[in-house]
Amino acid sequence: MAAIADIAFVLFRPQQAGNIGAAARALRNMGLRDLRLVAPAASSRSRAAHAMAVHGDDVLAATAVHPDLKSALADRTIVAGTTCRRGLYRSGAIALRDAARELADAAATNRIAIVFGPEDHGLANRELKLCHRLITIPTAPEYPSLNLAQAVMLVAYEMMLALAAPPRDAAPAPELAPAPEVAAMFERMKETLVAIGFLPAENPDHIMFALREIFGRSGIRPRELEILNGITSQIRWAAGDGHRALAEKRRAGMKLR
Amino acid sequence: MAAIADIAFVLFRPQQAGNIGAAARALRNMGLRDLRLVAPAASSRSRAAHAMAVHGDDVLAATAVHPDLKSALADRTIVAGTTCRRGLYRSGAIALRDAARELADAAATNRIAIVFGPEDHGLANRELKLCHRLITIPTAPEYPSLNLAQAVMLVAYEMMLALAAPPRDAAPAPELAPAPEVAAMFERMKETLVAIGFLPAENPDHIMFALREIFGRSGIRPRELEILNGITSQIRWAAGDGHRALAEKRRAGMKLR
Repeated sequence: MAAIADIAFVLFRPQQAGNIGAAARALRNMGLRDLRLVAPAASSRSRAAHAMAVHGDDVLAATAVHPDLKSALADRTIVAGTTCRRGLYRSGAIALRDAARELADAAATNRIAIVFGPEDHGLANRELKLCHRLITIPTAPEYPSLNLAQAVMLVAYEMMLALAAPPRDAAPAPELAPAPEVAAMFERMKETLVAIGFLPAENPDHIMFALREIFGRSGIRPRELEILNGITSQIRWAAGDGHRALAEKRRAGMKLR
Repeated sequence: MAAIADIAFVLFRPQQAGNIGAAARALRNMGLRDLRLVAPAASSRSRAAHAMAVHGDDVLAATAVHPDLKSALADRTIVAGTTCRRGLYRSGAIALRDAARELADAAATNRIAIVFGPEDHGLANRELKLCHRLITIPTAPEYPSLNLAQAVMLVAYEMMLALAAPPRDAAPAPELAPAPEVAAMFERMKETLVAIGFLPAENPDHIMFALREIFGRSGIRPRELEILNGITSQIRWAAGDGHRALAEKRRAGMKLR
């Protein structure tokens, strides 16, 4: 069974030291230890952070600071983003309790990160692109915006309970491809779909979000990643210089591969 | 069904204004409104309280202050105390999720209060005597002491979910595209990948199984099916007759779509 301490919580551009400290305490309360900060506007070494961390000060002291989200996720295979907003690109978000159960099942063979946006705006679409799935925390519809550390606590609590529960089915979830390689694959896919005129160059992201959502639901395994990269390369080749060569080969009745 | 707004959260001798404000925000997030303070050491009117309440300021403003626990509970029929300590008088404590379910069942015909102790010590035995049942919040055993507002958030969240109680399987799964249309999409995808030379014409199925598996895991919704069909068509167009036209358009600096 996966240990809860292996799950990374990533705060993207946190603004307030008190929230960083309170998040560290929340993680410690639930048995988590891996807190990562991306370009924080406040210091985890500040007095305000320490005052809120209380006995979570060891988690706080061990906090890693990263310059960008990509580097914070470099060693992860599943990245889940949290959002309280509904709307475009966020319709596929899974309610926290269900998401926690899915992540707990996957945790035996995967390295998981859960990402939280800044206090004022949450995660923007740019960050969501690096997430394979989206978690939404149920709230009253009138006021869905949670304090950052409160959101961290709810997710940590649900993850702890989900990991403590007996696994739902015996088949272990397969290991997925590393997050940076998946991100690079999507980038190439987007460029290719723009190059062949399927996606408009001025706004390729709208449709790309739908594609990311499909693949995010399924998860991409290392061999599948190779296949998808292979398809993308072949499309470019076929749509570009390879076009003529292919037609000639075909005329000559040659095997294509 | 009982409304969640009817449930009272009672903070017994809270010490810090920030926690009172954060508790008000947490209640508002989860649709609760009835916050009661017993002999608070900090004011709900203070700036620190308001800063943490954000849009929970209406809950904060409506907070009732009571001189003792008894008067705060005067109109209630069920009182649940929260504790993170084990030991005498606390062995009967019920884990939060189960307790929330029981309280939600009881709420239809009862007026419920949930009581939280001060930051430093929690509820003492004297207060526990006024409680009809005890709730314990699961934590890692090494550090069970939660921030007061975090404890309020977890209980409010579980109460909201228990009262909303959509039976787990009643949540409608999204409708997927009709199976025949998905099968036809795969057929077109295969032909296209053969046509551009990615799949060998003599044995295209080996790789296609891998693709079917990815999409099988995710499931494909109707709009997503359209997108996938669109991509396939565009690849054929770009790799075939469209190739020259596309190159000309690009040279002419025209928008592609």
